[in-house]
Amino acid sequence: MMTDEKILSIFRKYPGQHVSGEELSEELGISRTAIWKHIEDLRKIGYNIEAEPHLGYRLISLPDRLVALELSQGLNTKIIGKNILSYDTVESTMDAAYDLAIKTKGEGACVFAESQRKGRGRMGRDWQSPRYKGIYASIILRPDILPNETPKITLMTAVSIAKTISSKFNLEPQIKWPNDLLIDNKKICGILTEMNAEADKVKFLVVGIGINVNSKQSDLVDTATSLKEKTGDKIDRIAFAKAVLEGLDEHYAIFNEKGFQPILDELRNFSSTLGRRVKVDFRNRRIEGQAMDVDESGALLVRLDNGFVERILSGDVMLVR
Amino acid sequence: MMTDEKILSIFRKYPGQHVSGEELSEELGISRTAIWKHIEDLRKIGYNIEAEPHLGYRLISLPDRLVALELSQGLNTKIIGKNILSYDTVESTMDAAYDLAIKTKGEGACVFAESQRKGRGRMGRDWQSPRYKGIYASIILRPDILPNETPKITLMTAVSIAKTISSKFNLEPQIKWPNDLLIDNKKICGILTEMNAEADKVKFLVVGIGINVNSKQSDLVDTATSLKEKTGDKIDRIAFAKAVLEGLDEHYAIFNEKGFQPILDELRNFSSTLGRRVKVDFRNRRIEGQAMDVDESGALLVRLDNGFVERILSGDVMLVR
Repeated sequence: MMTDEKILSIFRKYPGQHVSGEELSEELGISRTAIWKHIEDLRKIGYNIEAEPHLGYRLISLPDRLVALELSQGLNTKIIGKNILSYDTVESTMDAAYDLAIKTKGEGACVFAESQRKGRGRMGRDWQSPRYKGIYASIILRPDILPNETPKITLMTAVSIAKTISSKFNLEPQIKWPNDLLIDNKKICGILTEMNAEADKVKFLVVGIGINVNSKQSDLVDTATSLKEKTGDKIDRIAFAKAVLEGLDEHYAIFNEKGFQPILDELRNFSSTLGRRVKVDFRNRRIEGQAMDVDESGALLVRLDNGFVERILSGDVMLVR
Repeated sequence: MMTDEKILSIFRKYPGQHVSGEELSEELGISRTAIWKHIEDLRKIGYNIEAEPHLGYRLISLPDRLVALELSQGLNTKIIGKNILSYDTVESTMDAAYDLAIKTKGEGACVFAESQRKGRGRMGRDWQSPRYKGIYASIILRPDILPNETPKITLMTAVSIAKTISSKFNLEPQIKWPNDLLIDNKKICGILTEMNAEADKVKFLVVGIGINVNSKQSDLVDTATSLKEKTGDKIDRIAFAKAVLEGLDEHYAIFNEKGFQPILDELRNFSSTLGRRVKVDFRNRRIEGQAMDVDESGALLVRLDNGFVERILSGDVMLVR
């Protein structure tokens, strides 16, 4: 544990109480001046820590910041988030995680940022990241799959986040194949999966998630919404982000143990696409038909009016009314 | 053009002749001391440049080094090698090219190295890179293909190098599906294709090639050979590397204009695999049967003894005698 974490863990042992600089100094084996410097560092991150003469320090409130120190605290996962990096601003959490994946082994590392200068969506599109309002994170996974199985991981992520949202809030998110979550037909979450692979071996995936949490409608485009807009309440982003990581960890374990079928069964409950008439743009083509099902590899099956069934790996789906 | 390139281009204008420091100084608009420093730099790379009092400088011989200055010289390509980086030693040309691809746009950039500390083969295997004996290069391509089409690019590269070897030397290389070239059943060249992709869009490929050129048998494992061993002559690596880039450029243009079919037709002429009885290890399975054909997506079709045809995207093929 780093010194900052140790100080916070001592505060947590005595909730609401003062802890003297002397106690902290003894427990950590560093000088009272050093303690004071660490307290200052924590304040800079956003921890509200009171210093009272003769009584000592008291933790008043946690920062509304997605900092690794808080995200890691009591996180109940096996793989996801065992290593968390948090930044105020990055070019893109995707690039930061990609870099990390090339330089390290293992999986589950997460890169969080409060804002991105060049946040990315699917197919090279932009992703807007209003600062301190969302959850923007990229996660390194190394599943034993073929390159053309990556849609399974995107859909697994979508299912896990949909379940986390519906269990924490009284909301009914819908999965818009292949990579968006909607509430009342407005985007609440986007998922982007990028891979590094050889022809028959995925070396790693970086799964990016962007969730609109505390944004106001005025921060967002018309076609998007946020959890705050939908619930009317400001959301505790740290608690929610931890729940997202825990949900993802649970579904990744299911995927690794039992494959894609259980994910697919859950997906059907959340899908906004299946059974609907859709237009799909993909690979410079547009088709229209009935979205029938998602197959065992994560592809969307669309029955055209001539009866022919198209199997689509990824594309832009529009619901036809 | 950089100063070094300008100096070399002046030498090339007057082959075998002396060029005075004064002439060089005037032509380039820099001091004679600066000229002298650049001549020293060129000597360090391996250019043999004579300096004769009153006469000036004379280029005696080029370096036996794969340096960008020489590889670029008169290279007749449209895409491949418009940007060449050359190093003495890198961890891996794959990583260097990958990094470059993430940071830049465009395609065709090539990274050459005379040796690699951690040269990579397929499936995380090592690739030995005896210094100054081979061609170790990684090339950035951005074809408009799906992730599962990358075997086409590996095979296109194999076909183009096989043709370059057979046209420059009196040798008959064979393509061992999916990514090796053999001469008399010994490996002369390995190809490794890594991708960066979304589910339905390859963002870029890095195609790595390793060719055993001037290695002696004692530099190599028993199952490998070199062009020098096979021809009995020391090969001009620069001229050969340029021919490889030109061949690749030509085949990449064919692939982009006409697709994989013309590549596939050529592949059949060079294949050591087709028509043979093979064992194939892939994805923790082993099958045995008759290698029938490569299909239009680059996959190997193997007919098992029970008549069933397996379609294999990538794997290790062993010929059964």
